[in-house]
Amino acid sequence: MTSKNRWSTPAADALRVEPGFRLADIDPRSTPGYGGDKNDGRADLEAGRAPLEDLQERLFAQSVAGTATGSVLLVLQAMDTAGKGGIVRHVVGAVDPQGVELASFKKPTAEELEHDFLWRIEKRLPDAGRLGVFDRSHYEDVLIGRVRELAPRDEIERRYGAIVSFEARAAEMGIRVVKVMLHISKDEQRERLGERLERPDKHWKYNPSDVDERKLWDAYMDAYQVAIERTSTPIAPWHVVPADRKWYARLAVQQLLIDALEDIDPRWPAADYDVVVEKERLANS
Amino acid sequence: MTSKNRWSTPAADALRVEPGFRLADIDPRSTPGYGGDKNDGRADLEAGRAPLEDLQERLFAQSVAGTATGSVLLVLQAMDTAGKGGIVRHVVGAVDPQGVELASFKKPTAEELEHDFLWRIEKRLPDAGRLGVFDRSHYEDVLIGRVRELAPRDEIERRYGAIVSFEARAAEMGIRVVKVMLHISKDEQRERLGERLERPDKHWKYNPSDVDERKLWDAYMDAYQVAIERTSTPIAPWHVVPADRKWYARLAVQQLLIDALEDIDPRWPAADYDVVVEKERLANS
Repeated sequence: MTSKNRWSTPAADALRVEPGFRLADIDPRSTPGYGGDKNDGRADLEAGRAPLEDLQERLFAQSVAGTATGSVLLVLQAMDTAGKGGIVRHVVGAVDPQGVELASFKKPTAEELEHDFLWRIEKRLPDAGRLGVFDRSHYEDVLIGRVRELAPRDEIERRYGAIVSFEARAAEMGIRVVKVMLHISKDEQRERLGERLERPDKHWKYNPSDVDERKLWDAYMDAYQVAIERTSTPIAPWHVVPADRKWYARLAVQQLLIDALEDIDPRWPAADYDVVVEKERLANS
Repeated sequence: MTSKNRWSTPAADALRVEPGFRLADIDPRSTPGYGGDKNDGRADLEAGRAPLEDLQERLFAQSVAGTATGSVLLVLQAMDTAGKGGIVRHVVGAVDPQGVELASFKKPTAEELEHDFLWRIEKRLPDAGRLGVFDRSHYEDVLIGRVRELAPRDEIERRYGAIVSFEARAAEMGIRVVKVMLHISKDEQRERLGERLERPDKHWKYNPSDVDERKLWDAYMDAYQVAIERTSTPIAPWHVVPADRKWYARLAVQQLLIDALEDIDPRWPAADYDVVVEKERLANS
């Protein structure tokens, strides 16, 4: 039984945000579209590594050959502990690192703050033929930006439209923008933070401010609801991926990437030299 | 039996270049220091993933905690087809991509050519707490630079000394520079280029100039001999890794990285908060 067979609905269809979407209605422990259990999910994640790797290598081959026109950009947004790092490691980690451009966006620097919020983002858009990954992104500027009132409300309002325009331009450049919110529950986050406090080898992952942010949980959920509503477009839709079950979230994002790459359908570049002549030259060398 | 037990001599000792070294004396099919065969080597490579990943995660944890002082820089040099890409994929690919800084140095751009040859290199030195990988490097400027006479001979001569100073400064900054030449034979390269010509999914990896370079094989080996002699220092020694057997080259480089990380001996950062207090705060959140 192949991975796809356990999907009653393709991941992209099961997870894509549609008009009228309400974040509060999505159960973080659910596994939309997928009929398997944890063991199935792990097996399917393993089985999905090869096709993902193959598709990405074809895309990378095009970039080397200079014929690439498309790229994929995975945008990862989530509350802390939701598993962004695990996605990078276990899903993106399956493909050739040479073809991956990973950008982690932290708190903006003084220089970045002097520019429009998209300034630092635009510089990290993936080149043609690459798989770009944004670990956090321009959405921070309408999430923590809104919750913590880091900018005036009318500036926050302006940003939703700026993001839609920006992503439309990226799409015109051939970038498939795959936007993912990893959706965990507040209780699951408590569990995961608790584990970080229990284990000395996880202490570095914990920050006291994590608890401060928990107090603003509802405000964050509201900010996600608004951001997703305002910036989900046909060309760059949001996907809300229930993430209380790590195995499901990883499997689902793997499927979203495979779908995006299959949409580009990268073919191996044709030789731009005469293969017969080169075999002869090589034999004589 | 653990990986280390099949090494009669640690990889670093077996492969490090010593005074009087002659590249021509090293058999590209040999497996210095290692007593196992291909199956053993593959098993040991697999077994080495976890310790490498663990060490690198500790280092990365330090960078997140702001306590990192060391980093590792793997410099990969080789003739085409020697397997640099495979090292990146199968050795470096085992660790968390978030902690890796991969730099591929291609033919210099016009802007890069306006600066000293180390200008573009210095910018890509790994930050503290990271594993940097140079896929090709500043050594191109004394390899193809020498063979193709891309710079006057006295400028090439100057560069050996400039490299030694540069790497000494890098070491003072806490960077463990692990220099690796993957050493293949001319016959093995013909085999591998031939395979690229046989398989349409490998055509993109072949370039007719590869055969032109083969005609200069001896000049390249001379350039490697001189470069390695002139730039192998106690603080940044060269390692010549026989690479006709891919499994050996990968296993050996994995061991070199493990050794460099063990030398840093990164410990999990201590909590800079009160764990008991935080457990209480978390429970109430």
